[in-house]
Formats: sequence, C-alpha cells, structure tokens
Amino acid sequence: MAAQKRNMKIIVQKYGGTSVGTAERIKNVAQRIALRRNDVDALAVVVSAMGNETDRLLSLARNVADFPSLREQDVLLASGEQVSAALLAISLAEHGIKARSFLSFQLPIITDKKHAGAQIKEINISKLLQSFQEGEVAVVAGFQGITPGCEITTLGRGGSDTTAVGLAAALNANYCEIYTDVEGVYTCDPKVYVAARKLKRISYESMMELAGLGAKVLHHRCVDLARKYNVKILICSSFNNAEGTWVCEEDEKMEGTLISGVTYSRGEAKISVLGVPDKPGIASLIFIPLAEMGINVDMIIQNISRQNTADLTFTIPAEELEKALYLVTKAAHEIGAEGVHHDRHIAKISVVGGGMRSNPGVAARMFQTLAREGINIMMISTSEIKISCVIDARYTELAVRALHDAFNLGV
Amino acid sequence: MAAQKRNMKIIVQKYGGTSVGTAERIKNVAQRIALRRNDVDALAVVVSAMGNETDRLLSLARNVADFPSLREQDVLLASGEQVSAALLAISLAEHGIKARSFLSFQLPIITDKKHAGAQIKEINISKLLQSFQEGEVAVVAGFQGITPGCEITTLGRGGSDTTAVGLAAALNANYCEIYTDVEGVYTCDPKVYVAARKLKRISYESMMELAGLGAKVLHHRCVDLARKYNVKILICSSFNNAEGTWVCEEDEKMEGTLISGVTYSRGEAKISVLGVPDKPGIASLIFIPLAEMGINVDMIIQNISRQNTADLTFTIPAEELEKALYLVTKAAHEIGAEGVHHDRHIAKISVVGGGMRSNPGVAARMFQTLAREGINIMMISTSEIKISCVIDARYTELAVRALHDAFNLGV
Repeated sequence: MAAQKRNMKIIVQKYGGTSVGTAERIKNVAQRIALRRNDVDALAVVVSAMGNETDRLLSLARNVADFPSLREQDVLLASGEQVSAALLAISLAEHGIKARSFLSFQLPIITDKKHAGAQIKEINISKLLQSFQEGEVAVVAGFQGITPGCEITTLGRGGSDTTAVGLAAALNANYCEIYTDVEGVYTCDPKVYVAARKLKRISYESMMELAGLGAKVLHHRCVDLARKYNVKILICSSFNNAEGTWVCEEDEKMEGTLISGVTYSRGEAKISVLGVPDKPGIASLIFIPLAEMGINVDMIIQNISRQNTADLTFTIPAEELEKALYLVTKAAHEIGAEGVHHDRHIAKISVVGGGMRSNPGVAARMFQTLAREGINIMMISTSEIKISCVIDARYTELAVRALHDAFNLGV
Repeated sequence: MAAQKRNMKIIVQKYGGTSVGTAERIKNVAQRIALRRNDVDALAVVVSAMGNETDRLLSLARNVADFPSLREQDVLLASGEQVSAALLAISLAEHGIKARSFLSFQLPIITDKKHAGAQIKEINISKLLQSFQEGEVAVVAGFQGITPGCEITTLGRGGSDTTAVGLAAALNANYCEIYTDVEGVYTCDPKVYVAARKLKRISYESMMELAGLGAKVLHHRCVDLARKYNVKILICSSFNNAEGTWVCEEDEKMEGTLISGVTYSRGEAKISVLGVPDKPGIASLIFIPLAEMGINVDMIIQNISRQNTADLTFTIPAEELEKALYLVTKAAHEIGAEGVHHDRHIAKISVVGGGMRSNPGVAARMFQTLAREGINIMMISTSEIKISCVIDARYTELAVRALHDAFNLGV
C-alpha cells in the first residue's frame, strides 16, 4: 500500500471556512495547492463549509423548527462541506491539477451514531490511495461522517480539523497543515497586546489546554487525536506565506519554556448558591439536574462552612445561564439554601505551559501580578500545566498584558 | 412486501423548487402533508432544491472555472436537494408527522454514469418500505442518483419529476402528485390568452409533445417514464387546492378530443444556408459538425433545387446560435455555398392532440387560421399528434389566440 511506504511524502492540508469563503478565495487556495503540488508525493485536502454557510443552514433549520432533529440537521449541515469540496476540485482542475472530491460516505469515514457530535471510528483509505496513484489531489469534505447504517453524521465543533488529523493518522502522513485566518499560535491574543509573539512550536498538551480555554485556533478534541496518533500539525495562514506554529510532542527546546502563553475566555458565567446547608450529598442535588440537561460545569469552589452552611460557586457556559438558573434556583429552594446570585460579567484568565510542572513559583507570580494591578481573583483552578483565575471581565485586557510581561513572553 | 399489497394506498408527491423556495413555503408544504397524511397508507415526498439554489450553485462553479467537470458539478448540485429534503423532514416533525429524509445513495437510486444527465437504472425500495412500516413519511431528495461505483450523478432537466415518477413505479404507487406553481395543464398559456382552459386529463402522448414543445409543466423524459410504467400523474398547485390535471393513458373521453392545446416556444433560432450545391452527401457536411458539438437540430427544410443549388433551413436552440453559426459558416465555405443567413426572432407554434390521428383536417385549419391573420409560415413539421409552424416571433400571441379560437378550446 502506497501510504505505508515511508519514502513517500504524504501531506494532509485543511482549509477552514474563511479560507474558502468565496469563489475568489477558493481560487486562491487552488493556486497555493498548485504551487505546492510538486513538493509532495501525495496530497489530501480537507475543506470546511464556505464562510458562514453552516450558520446560514442552521438558521434555515431554526426557521422551520425550534428544535430540529439532530439526524436531519446533520443531513442539512453536511451539504456545506460537500459544496466546498466540489468547488475546490473544480478550481484545481482549472489550474491544471488533477483532483477528485470525496464525501465521507464515499471513502467511507465511519463514525459512531452520535449526531451533531460523532466520533470517527475508522477511515477507509483505499480510494484515497487509488486517487493518489492516479496522480490526483484528493479533496475530502470535512466535518462529516457516515455510520455503519449509512446515516450521515457531523463531528461537532472543530470537525473539519478532526477529519484532517484523522486522515493524516490513517494515511500515516508526514504531517497535517491546518490553514486558517491567523498565522499560528501566539503567546497571547495579538489584538489584545501587540507584544504577542508567535510560537515556533507548542506541545500537544499545552495546545490542548489553550484550546480548552477558548483560544480558537484548534479544538481540543482534534489536538487530542493528533497526540494519540502522534500527528504533527502545522498551523498557518492561507492568506500569506508566514511560518506557522508546529504542534507536536514536547521536545528538549520546549522543556526550557516555563510558560507558552496567556489566554482568556469571556464565554462563561458564574452562579453562587448562598447558605447551602452543610450536609453530605447536598451538592449533588444541585449538579445532577445540570448534568442531566447537558450543562457543562467548569470551575467549582465551596467556601469554608460557617454556622453549618456554605456558599457554593461555579461557572458554566454563558449561553446556558438562563436554563441553569432555572434549575439551580429550583434545587436551592428544595435544599433550603438562602439564595442564588449570578454574574455574567466575568473572564477566565489562564497561563499555560509545560514548564510549570517543575517550577512551583508560577501560581505565586500570577497572583502577585494580578494583585499589583488591583485585580480581584474570584475563583482559581489549576492543572499540571495550567493555572486559571476568574476575574471581573472589565480587567481582561489589563490582566493579559500584565501576565504576558510578568512571564517575559514578549518579542 | 408492503408496497406489493394492492389494498394499501401509496402516494408519491413531488414539490418543485418554487414550492419549497423559502422556510415559510417549506412549512406550508409540511402543513399540506399533515392534512393529507391520514388519507393514505404510505407517503413518499420528493423535493427539488429551494428556489434558485441550483442556479446559485452553478454560478459558484462558473466563478471558479469556465467548464466545470461534470462529475464535480453533480456533487455540487446534489447538495441542493439534500438541503430541502432535510428541511422538509425537520418541518414535518415540527408538525407532529414522523418523517425521515433519504438521499439517493442511502436508498440507493442507481443510475448510469452519465453525469449531468444520468438515467435511473434501479431503485431499491426496501428502506422506504421499512420507513413506511415505522409510520414515517419518506422525504426523498430528487434529481440525484448514485452509480454502482458510488459516484454522485444528477438526472438533468426535470430530474426531480423523474425521481418522483421512478419512485411511484418502483413502489407500485396509486399515483404520483406533482406540485408546482401552476394549477395544471392548460389549452394554452393563460398569460397569453384568458380563454385558456385547464384540462381535466391529458394522455401521456399529448403531454410528451407539449413538454417537448416548451410547455414547462413536465419534462418529456418524465412523461415517457410514466407512460412506460403506466404511472398516473396529477399535476396541481402547491399554493391552493384547485383540481389539477391528470396525465394518464388515453381513454374514451379523451379520444373525442381533437386538440388538447396550443403551445409556443421562442427558444429557437433559424439558420439558412443559401445556394447549396445539389450533390449527394452535402447536407451531412453541414449537420455532422453540429452533431459533434452536441447542438440539437430540430426542424429541417430544403427547397426545390434550381440551377443545381438548393436552400437549406433549420432550427436550433437559440442559446447555441453563435457556436452553430461558426460551424455552419465554415462548412458552407467548404462546400461552396453562396451564404448563410440567420434569424433569432422566430417562434414555433404547435397544436397537439390525439384526435388528429383520425382527422386529416387539422393541418389545413391551422394554415388557414394563420393565413387569415396575415401570419407567414416559415417552416412546418408534423408528427402523428402534433403540427408545428415556425413564424415571426412578433405574431406569437396573435397566433396562439387565433388557433385557440379556431379549434374551440376556450372556456
């Protein structure tokens, strides 16, 4: 099998919605591929739906039903990637490049049955290898899969990236290039602080933390898949030729790095239940209803009990706040708590880096820095390679810049 | 198998692009289906792409390439029907009707490999029967097929109608309802003459002639398929509940009808080659290049030879005129003809009806009527149940109205 021959150079590229957002941009992508074609032995290109096509389709569905069936919504959404795959194949032919589009059912890319958030189970690469042998660029529709029962699924957020990494793993590709509208991964959001520096490389683990924290370059599921199959990812821009950022195994150079970056997220809200009776099992009465509604609770803190009651505070995605408040207020009443407060105006600021494993001073430096700026820390959570603090959203940019300086991340 | 039990009432419905053109109209279709659901044991609904979606997709393709590969164009266009099928299934669920969408590869609807104009070879109905047994309305994406090699095809013009009739034949359905933006088949275009009368029924043969002559209600391929499998078609409007027109085998009532209707087409152009040397084989030198370019020649006349030369006149689709003129001028030069004329401003007026088989006076009455109105006949062609005349396009409406009156077609 061609893909197993390690003397072949196989690359998987992925172009996101912005990169294929218009006919002009699709032509631009075709041109980039044409220039690149001869550097590699085989090329598979994964595409997302054009620009806001997925949102357009979703709003069509919501115009006919409040809660569209996920099965049918997947049939609907999968059409978006189908359109871009066909258009890119057409455009490549126009540039003199032999190309062929593949939808997931045609390969197939087999997934489980979880509509709107399916997981890839198996990718059959035989048609791709055949296409490579005929000298074609294989253009694969991202984001979509097919169940063994021939039902169309979609992979959920970051789905096309996951398709690309999955294909790279199945093809044993040299690496996977992910083209997007940013040039790579930065030490912090360049829009927030001009001192932001583009990273040459970042480990899977740090990238996963960043992705989980709201840095929108790659979805953490995709990074997790890459880590599992050791697929090297290069993140770069489809609009210029700037060097991108490699996402790969932690190597010696990276181990020297204390902190890879500072990131923030404003997509969460905070709920506090005050005066919760301090009895075993009480917390579960609050959190089980949330779990049953699929509401993801992120950070949880409980203060020290006074007079046999405690205050419980936790964060949830802001768009779930109303639903959550309804459930929590009901539960609070049932358990005899004193009241429920909430706050939508919060931000989570995080520092991430593999180096903090062997360096216990990171947390202290973070708290000191925020204190020096007069920023109150509402909640703290930590992992091996990450420290997050919830603060008032007004201080987001100030906090990012101060921490970026404090950890010497700048150019 | 459920479909074979003749005590079951199975109906196939087809809704065209205008009927599903917006979210509102899709909801309207869902409502119509909900009202109808209990009258039948099983219902399969075929949908076209929304409104001008096919044109939008085609123009995207033409923005990236002058001549898109037909294979990729089929992948692109098939997305249109996928979107409407999913949306209608979503909307039906919202109306409390169990429904499930099916794309051609999911059934499958097997076609030959002729991209952009494939023919249905086989329809597997087992998934539809299963869906019926579960009480679901099966929503089938029209216009698309799949080859045995898993390539997406489209059926060309009138493709969704063909899907509907093909399904009705495969399911042995009681009949096939085709919903469109007109109320049925008229004795002539109601926009041209208010006296136009809606037909209660029309034979397959007359309908095929009408379709071939440019009456846009049904494509002749679809009518031909219906005739072959004896599928009764009801043409009606999706915007009201007016009685439609049945297309079926000629019956006794219809045999009494001399003429079913008067129709016209302005989509053709006329080319004349003057002074063609009167030698065997000369005509083929003109027509072979046209055939090789896929240009469809409709009517051909050659006048009586004088001084060993003849004038040759024929009609072609107006949109092919430039290409045809180039080929014909070249051929005329090679064979030593005197010159080439052309005329874009022509119309073809036809009277159609099964009754004319046993009534030789129809042609005479047609020519007389046109003569009385001072309309010059440029070309004539006849079939068993149709007479067509080419006239100056300026007189189109006048001719339609005069013939409609002459054959007493009015209300």
